[in-house]
Order: sequence, then structure tokens, then C-alpha cells
Amino acid sequence: MHNQYDLFNELGKSGAYFSWYCVLNKPNPLSGIRVVLSHTTHPGNIGAAARAMKTMGLRHLYLINPRHFPDAQATAMAAGADDILQDAVVCGSIDEALQGVVFTVAMTARLRDISIAVRTPREAMPQLLQEAQAGPVALLFGTEMSGLTNEEMGKAQLGVNIPANPEFSSLNVAAAVQVMAYELVAAAESFVPRVPQIEPATHERLEGLYAHLEKTLFEIGFFTTQNPARLMQRLRRLYSRTRLEDEEINILRGMLTVATEYNARLKKRYAEEHPDVQQH
Amino acid sequence: MHNQYDLFNELGKSGAYFSWYCVLNKPNPLSGIRVVLSHTTHPGNIGAAARAMKTMGLRHLYLINPRHFPDAQATAMAAGADDILQDAVVCGSIDEALQGVVFTVAMTARLRDISIAVRTPREAMPQLLQEAQAGPVALLFGTEMSGLTNEEMGKAQLGVNIPANPEFSSLNVAAAVQVMAYELVAAAESFVPRVPQIEPATHERLEGLYAHLEKTLFEIGFFTTQNPARLMQRLRRLYSRTRLEDEEINILRGMLTVATEYNARLKKRYAEEHPDVQQH
Repeated sequence: MHNQYDLFNELGKSGAYFSWYCVLNKPNPLSGIRVVLSHTTHPGNIGAAARAMKTMGLRHLYLINPRHFPDAQATAMAAGADDILQDAVVCGSIDEALQGVVFTVAMTARLRDISIAVRTPREAMPQLLQEAQAGPVALLFGTEMSGLTNEEMGKAQLGVNIPANPEFSSLNVAAAVQVMAYELVAAAESFVPRVPQIEPATHERLEGLYAHLEKTLFEIGFFTTQNPARLMQRLRRLYSRTRLEDEEINILRGMLTVATEYNARLKKRYAEEHPDVQQH
Repeated sequence: MHNQYDLFNELGKSGAYFSWYCVLNKPNPLSGIRVVLSHTTHPGNIGAAARAMKTMGLRHLYLINPRHFPDAQATAMAAGADDILQDAVVCGSIDEALQGVVFTVAMTARLRDISIAVRTPREAMPQLLQEAQAGPVALLFGTEMSGLTNEEMGKAQLGVNIPANPEFSSLNVAAAVQVMAYELVAAAESFVPRVPQIEPATHERLEGLYAHLEKTLFEIGFFTTQNPARLMQRLRRLYSRTRLEDEEINILRGMLTVATEYNARLKKRYAEEHPDVQQH
């Protein structure tokens, strides 16, 4: 039986091979990546996904409201990746699963999604590795029957579509995990980390901004002429592209607070000047 | 619902995307590829492999002595790829499954195999597409527990190893089919077929040569000093690298026939001259 060090030496000699093992002397670029499975129906798929992850050296599995977990079928299909299942974090919401995450890639069966830019795995995985230099990142997989909801897609910064037969495009969720994990290892092979240019805000800070923004737009009466859901999706798309920093969120929220206060002052003054008009 | 033509138009507009659909006007480079599963234990894996194939547009499934097939579990895991299962060819031997094949890639969990050159999927799949220009080609997957036997490996011209975690390198067989099929689609994207330089011999013609060679080497007494199995493996390796043409096999077998006849004449003359010595 080889140990890692032996393999490293052998591979060094053999030359042209995925130098998977050469990460021994540098931080493992895959260590900050979490795989998030949303509302998985069949526990066997959770086990098969854990196995697929472990074959490629991914460790962090998050499960949003799995129908059955833990489950004997999950353990059977994990075929020895029990440690991944044991360490899996079961979450009650997507926001819980993405806590602390600075970049989320959402899997989509659609080639283009209105709310998000869509890339191939080969295009996207080098970027995911680079984003992982700034903090935890997530690969988000939807439920077996219908994939991710629009709301879930809106939490991601990038969409990935595995190119497939247009007449039969539905990969099994564990098979999709295997393809993405495989592409991550291939991308890690030639990955040269750059110092992050920005300090991206975490998922929960972004969600805080969106909630604040939506509340403010309601208060100032903006949604009397706009569809709130669609407008918020457009705004998420805009800010996803921008990659907001923490400090920038402070500025934006400061502006929102002032706008609300200004609005409140206007209302108050109007009420004082028109005590006969009913307020709403 | 989109039809292929709509997607083709859309993709033409969107530009940088896997032009999977652009094969409409050229022969599909994936059409001559067969997936061969040897001695698969769990019928669910056969179904999952069929699904993985269909998502990537592969159609030809060959099963060597599957333990259970057809089987309800296979159909369930195929999740709509029933046509692949219905058209699957069940074979009693590897030679039957490779009938007519001019190039075989064998999956191996070992980084280096004594009998064969080993490449990564990304290195090997462009070559497989090119070989498919000359005739049917095969992707050969072993049984769940132990992979391919040495004898099976010896039937292939090239080995492929999916780079994996050295401490947990065992991909599920359907997951491996998914990764290889995915790499085939990616390779097909940038594939520019060349006119084949040679007319490679089929699998059965090669096997005929090896059988003839082995018989001849026995007859001329070569194996009194050599291990037959090991020697034949070395010779297979040599001729796999060479990629024999049909006409070359005729020449080699002609040489073997003459050598045997020469040997037979020598024996006959010796027997005539030494009627007192017992022949063997």
C-alpha cells in the first residue's frame, strides 16, 4: 500500500500526471469548498454524493432539509465515505447552509437563467478556486425532480450548467456532484492562487442588505409601481456581478437608513401640517 | 419546450458555449462509441450508467455477463433511459463485446499498469474520438469490487485512470461512466477529425493474431524458457502501441504459418532420420 508521500515521489518522477498529491506543501485549494444539497428526496443520492466527494477529496457536506437523513440507504451508497456523512451539517434553510460563504455556484439545467450568469464547469471551477482564497465557497445542488428554486438561484453569484443531451439532460444529483468534483480536481491541477483583490461580504451580510433594501423600497412606496419579487431578483443579479465588499454594504445600508429616516421625517411633517388627512 | 433546432439557434447567438448541438450538420463524433460494462454485480449500477450515457448522448451499451439483467432496479435507476437498456447487448465474453472494435480504452484504478499506457480522461478522450473515425471504439469498465482483470486489460490499447483521492479512489462505476461521458462531450466540442492514417485491425483480428502467435510459440518450444502469460502480455503491449493494420496481420500470420511449417518439416525429417527416437 502506498502512502501519500510515496505517490508524490512517483508522480514527480512520472511527470505528466494530475499532481493531485503535490498539494502536500501548499494549502489544499479544495479545503474551503462545501457541497450543499437542497431538499434531497432519496437518501441513496446523499450517500452516493458523499462517495463522489470523497473520491475527489472534498469533505464538507451540507444538507438543507433532506427528506431522510441519516438513513441506512445513504450509508450503503456512501460505500466507505461514512466520515463525510457523519460530519454532514443538516440545515433548516439555505441561509443557514450558506452562513459565512463568500461565493456560491448554483447548478442549473437551464442554459441561461434570468437572475444569474451561467458558465460551463470548466469555465467556472478555476474561478471557484480563486474565490475560495477569500473565504468559504459553496456548490449548490437542487432537489432531484425540479432542481433549485428561483429563490435559491438568487442566493448564488454564478450558475453552472453541465452540457448535456437536450433531449435527456437530467443528470442524477450524485453524478452531477461527481462531474463537478472531478472538474475541481482538474482545475486545482493548474491553479495558481492570486491574492484576493477584494474582501467579499459573506452570504448573511448580503442577505441583510437585500432585506434592508426590500423593506426600504416598500416604505418609500417604490413597489406601488414595480413587481417586488422580480425587482429584487434584478437587484440581486446586479449586486452579484459587483461582488460587494463588507465596507460597501455598510455604505449602502447607511444610505438606506437615511432614506427611510428622511421618508419618516417627510411623513411626520405632512401629518403635522395635515392633521385632518388619514395616515397610512 | 425547445426542440434541437431552437437550441442550436440560441446557442449560436449566445456564442461561448459547448456547441453540443452544432453536430447537426456533421456526423456525430460520439455515435461510434460503445460503453462496455464487465460482470456488473448490481443492476442499479447498469441503470445509472445508462442514464449517465444518455445525458451525454452516448447510445451503445454492452454488458458482459451481468449478474442480473434485465432487472427492475436497472430500469428504476435508468430514470427514463429505458431505450439504452432495451438496446443493450448482453455478451458472454469480452471478445464478443469487442467484436468489430478498432480501439479499446480500459478504465483502471492503478496509475501505471505494466501491460498498457495509462492516461487521464482529458488526455485520452480526444484520441478516442479520433480513433472512432476508423471504426467502432470501446470504453471498458470493470466489475464493482475489483475492476478489470489483467486478461481484460490486455485487450485494450490504452488505459485511463480518473485522478482521485489516493486514500479513497474507488468511484462508483456509473459515476465513472458519467465522468468519461462528460469528458467525451467536452472533447467533442473542440474535435477536428483527421483522415485516419491507418486502417486499424478489428479486435477479433488482433485476437486471432495473438492466438496464432501463442500457439506457434508453444509449437516451436519457445515457452520452455519463458512464462507464457507474461510473455503474451508483453507482446500484446508491443502490438497495442504499434496499432496493427489488417494487411500487417496477414503478413505476421503468414510468417507464423511458415515458421510452423518449417518446424513441422524439421520434425518430420528428424523422425525419418531417427525412426528409433520417440516423438513428442
